Amino acid sequence: MMMTKETGRLTIPSDTDFLKETQELITRWGADAIRDSDGTKLDTGLKQLAVKLYSTYFVARGYNDFAEKHPETVQSLYLMSDRITATGTTVTIPFMAHYFDQQIRPNYRDDPHEYWEVIDRTADAVVPTTNWSLLPDDDTVTIRQAAPYHEYTVSFLAELIWDPTEMYNHLTNHWGDVPHQIPFDVRYPEAQQFIRDTLRRWLAANPEIDVVRFTTFFYHFTLIFDDQEREKFVDWLGYGGTVSVPALKAFEKVKGYRLRPEDFVDDGFYNSSYRVPSRHYRDYVDFIARFVADQAKILVDEVHAAGKEAMMFLGDNWIGTEPYGPYFKDIGLDAVVGSVGNATTLRLISDIPHVKYTEGRFLPYFFPDVFHKGGDPVAEAKQNWLTARRAIMRKPVDRIGYGGYLKLAAQFPDFVDYVTHVADEFRDIYSKIHGVKPYAGLTVGVLNAWGKLRTWQPFIVAHGKRYKQAYSYEGVMEALAGQAVNVRFLSFADITSQGVPKDIDVLINVGAAGTAFSGGDAWQDPALVTTIRAWVAAGHGFVGIGEPSAIPGTWAGRTFQLADVLGVDQEAGFSLSTDKYQPAPVADHFLTDGLTLPLDYGESTHNVYAFPETAVIAAANDEVTLTSHDYGQGRGVYLAGLPFSPQNANLLLRLMFWAAKKENAFQTWYATNPETEVAAYPDAGLYAVLNNTSAPQTTTVYTTGGQQVSVSLAPEEIRWERIDHEY
Amino acid sequence: MMMTKETGRLTIPSDTDFLKETQELITRWGADAIRDSDGTKLDTGLKQLAVKLYSTYFVARGYNDFAEKHPETVQSLYLMSDRITATGTTVTIPFMAHYFDQQIRPNYRDDPHEYWEVIDRTADAVVPTTNWSLLPDDDTVTIRQAAPYHEYTVSFLAELIWDPTEMYNHLTNHWGDVPHQIPFDVRYPEAQQFIRDTLRRWLAANPEIDVVRFTTFFYHFTLIFDDQEREKFVDWLGYGGTVSVPALKAFEKVKGYRLRPEDFVDDGFYNSSYRVPSRHYRDYVDFIARFVADQAKILVDEVHAAGKEAMMFLGDNWIGTEPYGPYFKDIGLDAVVGSVGNATTLRLISDIPHVKYTEGRFLPYFFPDVFHKGGDPVAEAKQNWLTARRAIMRKPVDRIGYGGYLKLAAQFPDFVDYVTHVADEFRDIYSKIHGVKPYAGLTVGVLNAWGKLRTWQPFIVAHGKRYKQAYSYEGVMEALAGQAVNVRFLSFADITSQGVPKDIDVLINVGAAGTAFSGGDAWQDPALVTTIRAWVAAGHGFVGIGEPSAIPGTWAGRTFQLADVLGVDQEAGFSLSTDKYQPAPVADHFLTDGLTLPLDYGESTHNVYAFPETAVIAAANDEVTLTSHDYGQGRGVYLAGLPFSPQNANLLLRLMFWAAKKENAFQTWYATNPETEVAAYPDAGLYAVLNNTSAPQTTTVYTTGGQQVSVSLAPEEIRWERIDHEY
Ligand SMILES: [Mg+2]
Ligand SMILES: [Mg+2]
Ligand SMILES: [Mg+2]
Repeated sequence: MMMTKETGRLTIPSDTDFLKETQELITRWGADAIRDSDGTKLDTGLKQLAVKLYSTYFVARGYNDFAEKHPETVQSLYLMSDRITATGTTVTIPFMAHYFDQQIRPNYRDDPHEYWEVIDRTADAVVPTTNWSLLPDDDTVTIRQAAPYHEYTVSFLAELIWDPTEMYNHLTNHWGDVPHQIPFDVRYPEAQQFIRDTLRRWLAANPEIDVVRFTTFFYHFTLIFDDQEREKFVDWLGYGGTVSVPALKAFEKVKGYRLRPEDFVDDGFYNSSYRVPSRHYRDYVDFIARFVADQAKILVDEVHAAGKEAMMFLGDNWIGTEPYGPYFKDIGLDAVVGSVGNATTLRLISDIPHVKYTEGRFLPYFFPDVFHKGGDPVAEAKQNWLTARRAIMRKPVDRIGYGGYLKLAAQFPDFVDYVTHVADEFRDIYSKIHGVKPYAGLTVGVLNAWGKLRTWQPFIVAHGKRYKQAYSYEGVMEALAGQAVNVRFLSFADITSQGVPKDIDVLINVGAAGTAFSGGDAWQDPALVTTIRAWVAAGHGFVGIGEPSAIPGTWAGRTFQLADVLGVDQEAGFSLSTDKYQPAPVADHFLTDGLTLPLDYGESTHNVYAFPETAVIAAANDEVTLTSHDYGQGRGVYLAGLPFSPQNANLLLRLMFWAAKKENAFQTWYATNPETEVAAYPDAGLYAVLNNTSAPQTTTVYTTGGQQVSVSLAPEEIRWERIDHEY
Repeated sequence: MMMTKETGRLTIPSDTDFLKETQELITRWGADAIRDSDGTKLDTGLKQLAVKLYSTYFVARGYNDFAEKHPETVQSLYLMSDRITATGTTVTIPFMAHYFDQQIRPNYRDDPHEYWEVIDRTADAVVPTTNWSLLPDDDTVTIRQAAPYHEYTVSFLAELIWDPTEMYNHLTNHWGDVPHQIPFDVRYPEAQQFIRDTLRRWLAANPEIDVVRFTTFFYHFTLIFDDQEREKFVDWLGYGGTVSVPALKAFEKVKGYRLRPEDFVDDGFYNSSYRVPSRHYRDYVDFIARFVADQAKILVDEVHAAGKEAMMFLGDNWIGTEPYGPYFKDIGLDAVVGSVGNATTLRLISDIPHVKYTEGRFLPYFFPDVFHKGGDPVAEAKQNWLTARRAIMRKPVDRIGYGGYLKLAAQFPDFVDYVTHVADEFRDIYSKIHGVKPYAGLTVGVLNAWGKLRTWQPFIVAHGKRYKQAYSYEGVMEALAGQAVNVRFLSFADITSQGVPKDIDVLINVGAAGTAFSGGDAWQDPALVTTIRAWVAAGHGFVGIGEPSAIPGTWAGRTFQLADVLGVDQEAGFSLSTDKYQPAPVADHFLTDGLTLPLDYGESTHNVYAFPETAVIAAANDEVTLTSHDYGQGRGVYLAGLPFSPQNANLLLRLMFWAAKKENAFQTWYATNPETEVAAYPDAGLYAVLNNTSAPQTTTVYTTGGQQVSVSLAPEEIRWERIDHEY
């Protein structure tokens, strides 16, 4: 089928003194929007072009005059000192040690004895304020009546005197003497007014700009550097930087109780999304999200009043915007743009509701780290497009784009060609499938402590970065993001309050014991386990990956609280006396049909054993790694880990269909070669077969009713066919 | 140095119609005692020989007439049914399912509603007795007002109608119709009287017997079979079989509170020694040990009154004898004999206090499983001797012996020769070192929840059996049992009540998180961590192996509560946001000097990371596996696991000397080749170099003051030298 040459849906960056070349690229690529690049202002000549002009806009940084005149408005966060051991009855804590003093500075202005906390970690007790004193000149706290060999920490309120993204760019690119941008807090009325006035003035002064690309709003995700100017702590979802004294006071008014520093420091874990969120933390997130939505709406309204569109970048100062939360719709944004690194991050953007359009900013960024002599930007662009494309087939972003310095990209003709290809292919896909419901073989619910609020966000620490203790679970997200299934994110509270939603065929619980993703102590709740048991027994599926339903140290005699559903448990070390006769592994099984063994479990999970009536599909070293278990009319399936790979995506699909007892429908709009996938659009009468690799692939495509056709695909090809096509 | 030919210190088994041959073997082997073999009675002709005659004696089984006439005295234990899920508001539990109904039978005689317990495991609640009823004819309990999809268990009092060892022998050897021996409980006055009268009669009827070898006393370790006649549960240290209704009543009188079934069932973990012992369980062990000591003394006194010696077998019905406990001395035994499988089990016997002598029963047992055409009993005997010998050098048993059927052994001339060799070599060692303090480079305290009571017993599940979750820790016991160090077993309570004993140079904490061996929640106690911190800081060493000081799910922000001492912690999944810059591994270190890399950690331990100031000696896959950390004047050393091997024994020695800051004294009475070891006896002016293998070995022996000598040893050789020998 011929691809229709279209234009549009493409945002490209600009550069200085590059007008003519930019025009050529606009034509070549079919771009319909231009954005400014970091540190450059859009060439006013661009106004003449028939494109939309985007400008980044920083709300809470880049106005050091204001920040310096209103020092009380500087943003703040709670930080914990090192753990210091008393060797006598007095101990001094140098709480700024190992922090980057160009990024943070203690807030001595608001009484530390009221707003800080000194904790005896060994006794799990707050040290009375009368027992510690402060030496601001030394940035130390001295504790009296200390208990020898107890470990102490100081939780101190620190001013964030350097915006983290700006700091990162400055340090990475060696900007030398460029002044550090100080972030100020919209919580303060004077800051709020300044922010609003500044935006209004800017809007009036920039009539040619069509789209205000907020990068982003008020509060940056937590990114703290150490005294060696290295990353010390990063949480792309971290709310640490939203706190302030007025915020604490407002919280008490709104929620009716007072938060303490430990509600933020959280044993030094700072409410990582891997932590089972406390009641206090959930309340705090809600409080901030409500506030941020209200404040963002004010700015968006200004943008609209100026006749422009308001777009938000998903990242940087995005904390509190909660695109999947209850208040996002109130903001009234026209669009969200975000960085696309793979299928998961594509869906993270494309599934956002309550905006007119979404935009994916693709990679590579036009920057010297990739665009240098000997570099291979095409390889990176291919990797990016191929991983994102399968997610686009499920739910497309409305636009794509690139960022960086256009001059750099222009020096690589092959890359320019490839962008042309990506843009054309994207537009063709979009024109065919936008607004059309894709075929989905089943509906899966990803079950964890967060649910919908953290749609496509499980396991993220730093956006796009790989972690040893995450990748064996993240593969589930990456697989689901591009598969022919409907995905919902459910919380334990959803289940216990309303039961498992009727459209769910299979639940997945994936993650490490005790984390928010596996669930930890949530599994102590009888309402949770009984609801799931009854639902599985009624004929549904439960897939557990890693340490599902696990309570560290066991609870009620079990590690996995749903061991009876899964048909496996994890030896915690207490039941070596109990003989566990393992069923002989089954020779063949639907779950591993056609897969190359041994399977790849990533870091895997150890010491899991099967019950006598469980089917063991894979085992080694006296551990089971893939099992199936009948439970009532339903099934429980266990897998030790799922790092992403094409085969593992196929395995996950099998797990879900098998657990849901829909294996007979598995080979519908399905391709046998795991390097290929099928996306079907019955309402549009179309389906596509995708080659997700840069090598030729042959595959057998099952359409419906058992019909199959052999297909040979060129590297990276997407082959469209009409559903009623006669073979 | 010539070995002096001695005789004695050797017990051999007998056989039927074998008098002349037995005499020859006695002479050949230098045996001075004969024991009966299972199922045979000693040939009365043996009386004429100049040897002591041992007879096994069973106290509480083998008298079915009595047991059948006094059914209330049959022993009992608490067992838990399968976990059964209610699907409605009624649920029936077939509590005998998967138990071996020839071994156990429900005790319906003592009111089940008073002595049993039905537990809703999901709600962690006892089901009121009014809500369940019993159908004895079906061995079922039916629960009303059940909560759907809750799991229920029945803890029932069962009669133990078949002695476990006798059952095991019967089933293994297919004894067919031989009646099952019913164990009866000395707790009952009529049984106590019967036991005493029976012994008295037996003593009078067997004047030729010199040594009564109790095999053993009253209560068997827990060994339960399933309905397929397979081992279902085994705990060589299990107290399950000691319970009875009168025991419960007596306990309440003695300890002042009542125990419930769950105190025995313990979530289905049955107070495994891997469980952190509860207060109730510690009280119960004390209660039983006091009772068993009192009852055993009565029998031992009878034996002494008959002019004989009383010996106890360490195993079988040994529960409550607690050789390392506070009441053992009251029993007044002359001797303990036990099975020797390796160095650990040798020391378990040889270190027993308060007896006149100890005896190790060596392997192989003279039985057809080894002694058959094509079998290799010499290989097994060598393995046994070589592993036991190094422990003998630390603390010898006073006698050795073999068991089984003498005729079988006699058919293997090479084996007969080898036993000659073992006996001669043992006697020679004994004559040289008995009562002489061996050189020890340091004193190590093995720290766990049990302390001295479980001397040499950590990690034992079934005696001599290997477990996937034990061997990576058991290597520590096996290494220590034969090394030139003093070993003490310390409990957390010892530390918190009296501090670390002054003679301790280094503590070892080894085991899995949450178990009694690592310690679990004991580590929440400030007194424990502060005492150890202060002690290490004062210049001592702490060695952590596996998951030392760990609290599952973290506590106070840490997994390892002594992370600050060790300089490492284990990522629990909550702190991925915190960058952990790992120190570059050191190129050379005392700890791995001369060792072959990579090290063998067995199952190893995952996700452990180092602190910046920690020396990383071994790491892989972004995990550290061997580290050292300065703490005050002391050191913390971490190792991921230590399965036994000669190299790992050398590694452990290095860990201890390094942690104790005695590395400069390491090469004293030390052999460089890990397949060889040195044992020195300064008070006797002797030292020995051992080749622990069946291959020739060369080694460099360091004596004192840096003096060294190269030694070439024949396979299995033990080379004695005078300490003042001039080279
Ligand atoms: Mg409990
Ligand atoms: Mg554990
Ligand atoms: Mg806490």
